[in-house]
Amino acid sequence: MTTKATATDDSFHVFDTTLRDGAQREGINLTVADKLTIARHLDTFGVGYIEGGWPGANPRDTEFFARAQQEITFENAQLVAFGATRRAGGSAAEDPQVKALLKSGAPVITLVAKAHDRHVELALRTTLEENLEMVRDTVSHLREQGRRVFVDCEHFFDGYRANAAYAKSVVRTAYEAGAEVVILCDTNGGMLPAQVQAVVSTVVADTGARLGIHAQDDTGCAVANTLAAVDAGATHVQCTANGYGERVGNANLFPVVAALELKYGMKVLPEGALAEMTRISHAIAEVVNLTPSTHQPYVGVSAFAHKAGLHASAIKVDPDLYQHIDPELVGNTMRMLVSDMAGRASIELKGKELGIDLGDDRALVGRVVQRVKERELQGYTYEAADASFELLLRGEVEGRARRYFRTESWRAIAENRPDGTHANEATVKLWAKGERIVATAEGNGPVNALDRALRVALERIYPQLAKLELVDYKVRILEGRTGTESTTRVLITTGDGTGDWATVGVAENVIAASWQALEDAYTYGLLRAGIEPTD
Amino acid sequence: MTTKATATDDSFHVFDTTLRDGAQREGINLTVADKLTIARHLDTFGVGYIEGGWPGANPRDTEFFARAQQEITFENAQLVAFGATRRAGGSAAEDPQVKALLKSGAPVITLVAKAHDRHVELALRTTLEENLEMVRDTVSHLREQGRRVFVDCEHFFDGYRANAAYAKSVVRTAYEAGAEVVILCDTNGGMLPAQVQAVVSTVVADTGARLGIHAQDDTGCAVANTLAAVDAGATHVQCTANGYGERVGNANLFPVVAALELKYGMKVLPEGALAEMTRISHAIAEVVNLTPSTHQPYVGVSAFAHKAGLHASAIKVDPDLYQHIDPELVGNTMRMLVSDMAGRASIELKGKELGIDLGDDRALVGRVVQRVKERELQGYTYEAADASFELLLRGEVEGRARRYFRTESWRAIAENRPDGTHANEATVKLWAKGERIVATAEGNGPVNALDRALRVALERIYPQLAKLELVDYKVRILEGRTGTESTTRVLITTGDGTGDWATVGVAENVIAASWQALEDAYTYGLLRAGIEPTD
Repeated sequence: MTTKATATDDSFHVFDTTLRDGAQREGINLTVADKLTIARHLDTFGVGYIEGGWPGANPRDTEFFARAQQEITFENAQLVAFGATRRAGGSAAEDPQVKALLKSGAPVITLVAKAHDRHVELALRTTLEENLEMVRDTVSHLREQGRRVFVDCEHFFDGYRANAAYAKSVVRTAYEAGAEVVILCDTNGGMLPAQVQAVVSTVVADTGARLGIHAQDDTGCAVANTLAAVDAGATHVQCTANGYGERVGNANLFPVVAALELKYGMKVLPEGALAEMTRISHAIAEVVNLTPSTHQPYVGVSAFAHKAGLHASAIKVDPDLYQHIDPELVGNTMRMLVSDMAGRASIELKGKELGIDLGDDRALVGRVVQRVKERELQGYTYEAADASFELLLRGEVEGRARRYFRTESWRAIAENRPDGTHANEATVKLWAKGERIVATAEGNGPVNALDRALRVALERIYPQLAKLELVDYKVRILEGRTGTESTTRVLITTGDGTGDWATVGVAENVIAASWQALEDAYTYGLLRAGIEPTD
Repeated sequence: MTTKATATDDSFHVFDTTLRDGAQREGINLTVADKLTIARHLDTFGVGYIEGGWPGANPRDTEFFARAQQEITFENAQLVAFGATRRAGGSAAEDPQVKALLKSGAPVITLVAKAHDRHVELALRTTLEENLEMVRDTVSHLREQGRRVFVDCEHFFDGYRANAAYAKSVVRTAYEAGAEVVILCDTNGGMLPAQVQAVVSTVVADTGARLGIHAQDDTGCAVANTLAAVDAGATHVQCTANGYGERVGNANLFPVVAALELKYGMKVLPEGALAEMTRISHAIAEVVNLTPSTHQPYVGVSAFAHKAGLHASAIKVDPDLYQHIDPELVGNTMRMLVSDMAGRASIELKGKELGIDLGDDRALVGRVVQRVKERELQGYTYEAADASFELLLRGEVEGRARRYFRTESWRAIAENRPDGTHANEATVKLWAKGERIVATAEGNGPVNALDRALRVALERIYPQLAKLELVDYKVRILEGRTGTESTTRVLITTGDGTGDWATVGVAENVIAASWQALEDAYTYGLLRAGIEPTD
């Protein structure tokens, strides 16, 4: 297929709505901190537009817009606020919901408008004509206030089937009032690609509007429906990371973008961004606390995994005979499931990234690969725990683990007393600089108490630790079919005011796993501070 | 779309290859007993053809064919054996692999043939002409032996791009030699629907052969590619249950069949079978030991789950405005998720779903909405914790919380001893049926120890609890910018052999949150068992 547009000139929009529509997925519940982290990842990936939520309707979204504008310098993306057209019978200038959209400070606003006649009557409870007036008034008002406006035509395809003339009149009204793009939404997700292509072609021809597509995945065709709309002339695609969204989900950003770049030959991302896709997909899954789908197109760990056998010898001759793209284009790797050959290259790259020269020592790299594989089999993950990986790597390079202290024992007690009060207490016994130290501390939970006890014990010896602060703490239970007897993985992020680092611990319970991650966190903090190991 | 064919007259084939190609999925390893169970499910679902494996190449597959013919009376399906064309330079009649196919007794045989010139040369290491001869000879021989023959053209679409004339000559050769259907395979899965439709149309026109489609999901478009081939004239679709298959997977049988029946208006399954789809999808997932995807189109537990409070009031008026099909058509159900975006209408719907009549008591519904909002602000989530929500709802309806026991105190200790051993011990003190009970237990972590202690304490009074099992345990730290001082949410899933239920706890630490979720889990288990509260 031919080149249709380039990313840089706004003639084609990659519009992400993970933070708004993606958050509708069952089981996702994002904090403001989560949303800020995801926005950074999406900006790094290079999407043009990030829809952040509905300011005014939801206090968390209001806070997100305030903080995003203060805390993030976007490299590629524009921040988009989502909201509705004004209320029936009112005026946009006086509508509190419309005011909240303006107050968010977002340069772009997506307005949702009803395009299905029955929805206007049953959900909005107003007349078809007043609905058009609501679109016209709200779009014009926001344009007068200097905002760019996109209009989502909700339930467009069902509405088109019911009353095509009315559905098209909503598109025309929005476009004539100043909306830059009018997005046709398959809100119920029931469409198939051939139908989408036919409808989008007709609407392009009949209205002359610039069109976008928003597809839900209820038929399992959201990616194909999005591409069918592009084939028919849409120049704006709305997607979510990993396809998160209500019910089955939304069109998955990653296969849509990969198809546009690799199959259509379009340039819709900044140079080099596509190779970050696998990493960013997994990082966003971590933030929303969902296991990344192993079988996701392009980015799943199985996406380029070959069961050896029939194909193995021919793959050695020419891997391109057995894969539709080179996995490195999307930051993934081919894996042979029997004769495993993963690792080496990425370990070498990672070493370089950390400034640790692995030279040409193939045996050393081989040992590191081996250690990582063993640990990952136990449940460790180093993708999200750079500091623990660096400690492991330095341990192999230097021939011994970096140690600033040696733990003799620890104990944590959590108690709920008859009078309703709680007590959480921890004791640690450890050795540092030849000295045995025993410390006890209380906390608001057993892990917090352990953290404080460890700090009390070490701070006298290493005053540098006073600056350290735990900034994030995540728990994931692995192998979920055995209830509380599962393995537990803890990821801890620690900061010292100049930067953050992440460490991992895996054990049969959450306290023991947290202890490991804490040990790594403090060890790495001392390494960062330039302290020489004593042990 | 128009009716294209009916199931009963063989003019359209639903061909399942879960047992052959689906088994290539990473992590699937089927025993013969598994394969027999899955074959029964597929036959019940009403597929026309079940490809069981490659007899001769794999001892388990040989055994499967022998046992399937003895042990299963198929109602709807024909059993299909998969194999390759004869070796280069030999004769089909003498080829041991071809003999094994005949020996399997399968009435239908699918032969895989190379259709990509480079694969012929590099993988088969023979000439293009000999490859055609292998197809001709093997198909003719099997037909002479009284078998029906389908031919899979492997790597057809890539081969068509490289050498269209040769790819088509393979189709023609197979068809002229007596193959009933020639299947175009997108083996590497790199195609998009528009491309598939164009190629299939051309091949239908140029060869006159009856065509089938076999799509892999590497672009996330396998379902759409399958439908695009049908649009272009293919009358045979190869799919796998739940889309299992190598790398990303194969075209998922369920959305393909649902689209054909519900969107195309075709009749491809026996009467009533589509309503079994959700049950059969989950049953097959159980057999292969993979958690059913919650977000699978049509059959996922989230496929008809609605979160947005915005929609709930209109859903009450007309559910069809918010779902693309009636979920009962595929054996699924609509669910209302209780979330902080929810309002009155979704609470009323949820009450109805749980069989709790909230009547017209607007004050009661208002109180429940208020309670849910308060609790969600604290970090509770009820969308994933139906049982805790039901306890809350019943508490409001009945005027007091349901209580089977009253906790006086609990304590959990996690310890890592100087000799490297771990100890995890918990003590609970509680009252049940007027009796004070103190129990202590050990576990592999503090939560596991608490669970065991609670069980020890209660089982004597409520022997029904012996059946209960913790099946899943999830921890989420909320408000991640404050490290171990964050709020912790725990979700626990408990089962009693006849069903699962989920409960939630939120507290300042993981142990206290787990305790709450455990209390709810046991309380709900007793409610489910029909026990009357004592307290």
